[in-house]
Amino acid sequence: MNRREFGQALCSAAVGAAFARLAVAQQQAHDTSGAQKAPPAKPGGIAMLIYPDMTALDLIGPQQVFGYLSPHVHLVAKTRNLVVTGIAIQPSMVFADCADPVDLLFVGGGSMGSASVMTDTETMKFLSRCGKTAKLVTSVCSGSMILGAAGLLRGYKATSHWAVRDILPLLGAEVVAERVVQDRNRITAGGITSGIDFGLRVAAQMFGEDNARVVNLALEYDPQPPFGSGSGNPEKAPPSIAKAARAALEPLHVAYRDAALAARKTWAS
Amino acid sequence: MNRREFGQALCSAAVGAAFARLAVAQQQAHDTSGAQKAPPAKPGGIAMLIYPDMTALDLIGPQQVFGYLSPHVHLVAKTRNLVVTGIAIQPSMVFADCADPVDLLFVGGGSMGSASVMTDTETMKFLSRCGKTAKLVTSVCSGSMILGAAGLLRGYKATSHWAVRDILPLLGAEVVAERVVQDRNRITAGGITSGIDFGLRVAAQMFGEDNARVVNLALEYDPQPPFGSGSGNPEKAPPSIAKAARAALEPLHVAYRDAALAARKTWAS
Repeated sequence: MNRREFGQALCSAAVGAAFARLAVAQQQAHDTSGAQKAPPAKPGGIAMLIYPDMTALDLIGPQQVFGYLSPHVHLVAKTRNLVVTGIAIQPSMVFADCADPVDLLFVGGGSMGSASVMTDTETMKFLSRCGKTAKLVTSVCSGSMILGAAGLLRGYKATSHWAVRDILPLLGAEVVAERVVQDRNRITAGGITSGIDFGLRVAAQMFGEDNARVVNLALEYDPQPPFGSGSGNPEKAPPSIAKAARAALEPLHVAYRDAALAARKTWAS
Repeated sequence: MNRREFGQALCSAAVGAAFARLAVAQQQAHDTSGAQKAPPAKPGGIAMLIYPDMTALDLIGPQQVFGYLSPHVHLVAKTRNLVVTGIAIQPSMVFADCADPVDLLFVGGGSMGSASVMTDTETMKFLSRCGKTAKLVTSVCSGSMILGAAGLLRGYKATSHWAVRDILPLLGAEVVAERVVQDRNRITAGGITSGIDFGLRVAAQMFGEDNARVVNLALEYDPQPPFGSGSGNPEKAPPSIAKAARAALEPLHVAYRDAALAARKTWAS
């Protein structure tokens, strides 16, 4: 079922069957035995990078949104091995099988994994190649550091997690402190949970606002932050809490900065 | 590193190292070769049920919150096979290895998978056993249907996804139409994205409010729903969108109702 067919279904009484068919399509894309079937190497679809020690929620927020709307959501990794990141996830595609151009390239962030991947030659080559032709080049959280390390944000406005976004200019990007930032075909989002806001905004562009709004209801996205509105923003949080969070995230800031400087050297060489 | 140590670290300058150590602990809990090491069967910790065709975001929202605060977050399944649910996830523990009592039992919901699991004898036996002694018995989305099918919500106030929560009284629960509902040691939450609100509320109870607030900032949980506040609530959404979403979810309503009636018969027999 392609995007247009789903769009038509969503405007009809057949929409229930549409969700059900999608679930089946997703299931068929995987092999429950543990070994993964080789997916067809054809262009299009949504390519979501996965790598060790990434933040699972950066990935799963938008993956859940896109999964309702497209049966072509691929989790793309360097090898077919399980990717361990708190949970252990099976890739559905390797770099070599990801044919250009994709409709959307997505990179989530996360912990020390982002810093490692920023200096991983094979991953940087894949992103650079795929990002050249992807219709949309996107990220959540420190995923923008990784896009930046691959040279994909030079001359673009972008954002990242609040604790590290000041590093983006080292990678040629102009920082905008907003939840989701779009500059031409680059769409970057803030920390971790911003992936749901991001996913719905991107879904509206790719699949139409009505479809995205139906998914919004299916997700029951009516957030009620338990510590109050603004509690997730360090500018509005109690100073002692913001200080503790900044201290907790400082090692990541150091690691990303070092990785960004190393990436710049690679460009220059 | 246990919870108390983390709590102490969180109140000190060592908090950055604390997050980093936790990431290492999580990584060590998995085997990157694809085969899973048998975890030690000891009581305590957080047991999160995983099953085929569940909704990944139901699980990953709270898993991400708890993962910052405890190295003892287990993904518990019937077998060690990959669990396929849009993405394919490796269980970290099987039912037999999950020793009572756990600190928290968690069940996420999801699509047709919830209906299947509600009538799966082995899973129902596990939940019934584990739920008897768990300090907290919890769910997100249609996970409450599964708790209910296991007999764990009889006489409790509870909630579920807006599209299916009217089924809960068939399972002996009293419906409360709120995002997160706590009745004694039962904590149930609404649809899919409510798992983040839920996770943070539960984290505050288990690990203290200051720790949960730091995690809240690490997650940058400052939601900005792209279609406006209330857009994820069917009572406030445009009627045509609410109608389409209800139609999309109607097959699930039918399946859960049938499974709830089957579960009641099991109790009576």
